[in-house]
Amino acid sequence: IQNSLHLITLVENVKQQIAREDIRFVRFEAADLHGVSRSKIIPSRLFHEKTVNGIYMPRGHLELIKNPRDVEMDNINAGQSNSDIRLKPDLTTFRILPWLEKTGRVICDTYTISGNPLLTSPRYLAKQMLNQLQESGFSLHSAFTYEFCAFGVADIINSKSIAFPAATLLTDHDQLFMQELFDGMYYTGGSIESFSSSSGPGQMEISFQPEYGLTCADNAFTFRTGLKEIAKKHGYIASFHADTEGFYNSGLLSHCLWNANGTKNLFSSDCQTEDLTEIGKKWLSGLLTHAAAISCLVAPGVSRRKHFSKDVKDSQDRICATWGSNDNRCVYNIKCHGSKGTYIENKLGSATANPYLVLAATIAAGLDGIKRNLNFFNGANSNCNLDKLSTVPLKLEDALSSLEEDTYITAALGETFIRYFVTVKQYELETEELDSERNTFLEYFI
Amino acid sequence: IQNSLHLITLVENVKQQIAREDIRFVRFEAADLHGVSRSKIIPSRLFHEKTVNGIYMPRGHLELIKNPRDVEMDNINAGQSNSDIRLKPDLTTFRILPWLEKTGRVICDTYTISGNPLLTSPRYLAKQMLNQLQESGFSLHSAFTYEFCAFGVADIINSKSIAFPAATLLTDHDQLFMQELFDGMYYTGGSIESFSSSSGPGQMEISFQPEYGLTCADNAFTFRTGLKEIAKKHGYIASFHADTEGFYNSGLLSHCLWNANGTKNLFSSDCQTEDLTEIGKKWLSGLLTHAAAISCLVAPGVSRRKHFSKDVKDSQDRICATWGSNDNRCVYNIKCHGSKGTYIENKLGSATANPYLVLAATIAAGLDGIKRNLNFFNGANSNCNLDKLSTVPLKLEDALSSLEEDTYITAALGETFIRYFVTVKQYELETEELDSERNTFLEYFI
Repeated sequence: IQNSLHLITLVENVKQQIAREDIRFVRFEAADLHGVSRSKIIPSRLFHEKTVNGIYMPRGHLELIKNPRDVEMDNINAGQSNSDIRLKPDLTTFRILPWLEKTGRVICDTYTISGNPLLTSPRYLAKQMLNQLQESGFSLHSAFTYEFCAFGVADIINSKSIAFPAATLLTDHDQLFMQELFDGMYYTGGSIESFSSSSGPGQMEISFQPEYGLTCADNAFTFRTGLKEIAKKHGYIASFHADTEGFYNSGLLSHCLWNANGTKNLFSSDCQTEDLTEIGKKWLSGLLTHAAAISCLVAPGVSRRKHFSKDVKDSQDRICATWGSNDNRCVYNIKCHGSKGTYIENKLGSATANPYLVLAATIAAGLDGIKRNLNFFNGANSNCNLDKLSTVPLKLEDALSSLEEDTYITAALGETFIRYFVTVKQYELETEELDSERNTFLEYFI
Repeated sequence: IQNSLHLITLVENVKQQIAREDIRFVRFEAADLHGVSRSKIIPSRLFHEKTVNGIYMPRGHLELIKNPRDVEMDNINAGQSNSDIRLKPDLTTFRILPWLEKTGRVICDTYTISGNPLLTSPRYLAKQMLNQLQESGFSLHSAFTYEFCAFGVADIINSKSIAFPAATLLTDHDQLFMQELFDGMYYTGGSIESFSSSSGPGQMEISFQPEYGLTCADNAFTFRTGLKEIAKKHGYIASFHADTEGFYNSGLLSHCLWNANGTKNLFSSDCQTEDLTEIGKKWLSGLLTHAAAISCLVAPGVSRRKHFSKDVKDSQDRICATWGSNDNRCVYNIKCHGSKGTYIENKLGSATANPYLVLAATIAAGLDGIKRNLNFFNGANSNCNLDKLSTVPLKLEDALSSLEEDTYITAALGETFIRYFVTVKQYELETEELDSERNTFLEYFI
């Protein structure tokens, strides 16, 4: 039961900040399925009132589909699904955007009109999973690491495609942009741990410091919008999409479990022989068991998978989900580096995934491992044997179907979200060839 | 009998403002049928005198028509209808236009020479409807929400048409323009609630805070002129007209009834089951009954209707006027969001409608519902049944004829206005094909 005393002090704090920094606009934003921010800008004079009773956004988060099978079950005879939804700001995420003039930002949770949370909003799912984690006495300590490419805007944009110019590669000496990126992120809550150039030309890698709970996804979400706006300010285009051969941008989540009040790391075992505790093994087995299902949540792009299979002659269409410790080729990598203790990093993620879904999917899979005590012996010899349970399909269609057949993931993330997610992706699959034209623009917003 | 003491103090106030801000020109403006402002600029030195006895504007509001059938009945044997009309400023609408240099603005009511109000002036109709509302103990609390598109002026204007350039879309980061728009509107009385980009590229949506009575239409009227002038100042063209396929600009009025002295909202019922009070249902039935008639007042554009019918194979030429609560596809949408109580939003409106006529038509229809106790049961199942009373024609001709046959609307808005309005629209319909050339220019002024 939320007490509204606490709310009022929070509102008062924010209004003081608004008055002190002379903020004129507050951006109420929510993440849609692609992790792109949808927002309304309101004058800061109406902030108090909009915070108390939220704002309304009409458009659904998704385009219209022809014939859904079942119904939502909370009213008697209402019509279809394009009602308004209500965005209530989560005031702990109020920040001043240092790269914009006199503008603040608050992230909102989405509700239906009658006050029930929207079962398809990624942030709500992430919060659900975190609460379940909370109830069974765990807390998640995680961080995102993104690859993106940034290049100078050419002068002429002709109508067909954006070519690859002999851009002055964003060499790793371009100071001002870096500075504003570091400071910008740090002032809005996420502090960048390291910035380095990675393999492709113009490709950069940024890794964040790990945070508890939801803030790590909030930062990733903020970073995705901020990076583009800061890049544009400095005359670059930064993008998580990449469409030519040879390299792609990965977005990987490295996470570990701590106990409820954050004093002990439940993955790092004491003696030297084991490099994972019992709880860790169960969590990992959960990830392995549902590897196929969650792969389309952490790597949702359509033409995003080929690079996993470029070095075996006949490419059957599945790769096995391997794990290892301190081994960068397999899918799940166990690392333990000094004072941060042991954590798991999964390499399957791509930079276009929605950080809230990545978080929710990872927790759903891991938690299932703990509840059902999944555990099998681990062998690291050179051939991985072929059975039905832990492989990852390369094509998106197969990943979608194995998501639907996975009863536990669907139970955890809720029936409606899975059906909605599957419907959207199939819709994109069918309409793939006939509009490469449109999603250069779409990608222009990613 | 207006007491002239009150007038003199008002005049004095305005003259002080004029002296303090060093205003040099005052723009006396009135809205014509299209909601385009017709104005005379006079030096502020003559303000006092012009306020006392108004200014005169010769041109009729309409082009000459060949043979009207009946006569106006207030003189014995005068000629036809192109006399002077008198514009008397309504001093409560005096504002300083912050986006122009040393210029003030006052909105005028139009009268005939002998002092009678002009029966065809939109602002007068709106005031008439509001007074009738006032007498039966109600007041209207309403707000406009507009979509417009703004794009940078290309450099070359060739002779045939204004093409769609690869404009740098007015991304939602263009600060200065936004700032001046917010402040400009706020200083002239209308405060913008939220600014966000909507579906089409370069298409923006702006929604105002609701106001009592006429001020809401005044603000919409001010906004229509101001937006263009501010856009031009910042090197954009803002327009409510759009001529390519696929998207159009809507202008919708969301309104609700309060009691006379503004303490209770008569639409929001107490217990949870009903989402509309008795009075609300009557008002809504009025809107449904006259939906056909008022549709050509709230969406008067000629080629403005196709988007309602793009998703049914055979397009017969009428759509049924549906209603729902919190449902964005039907024509009348009942919303109740937190502290603002319940209000009705009608989606049929377009951004080119004249805000005064939209207001007058809505009140005329609603009030009729209350006076004649119109009420029928409401069913929300999936098929709407086909009878003579509540459908909306897609073609303008049919809408015009159903306006003439609607006795109550014509009685409410006055005989002369209806005939004049119908005459003008038919005139445009006949002369549509032969001058797409001319009204790009005309639209240049909308």
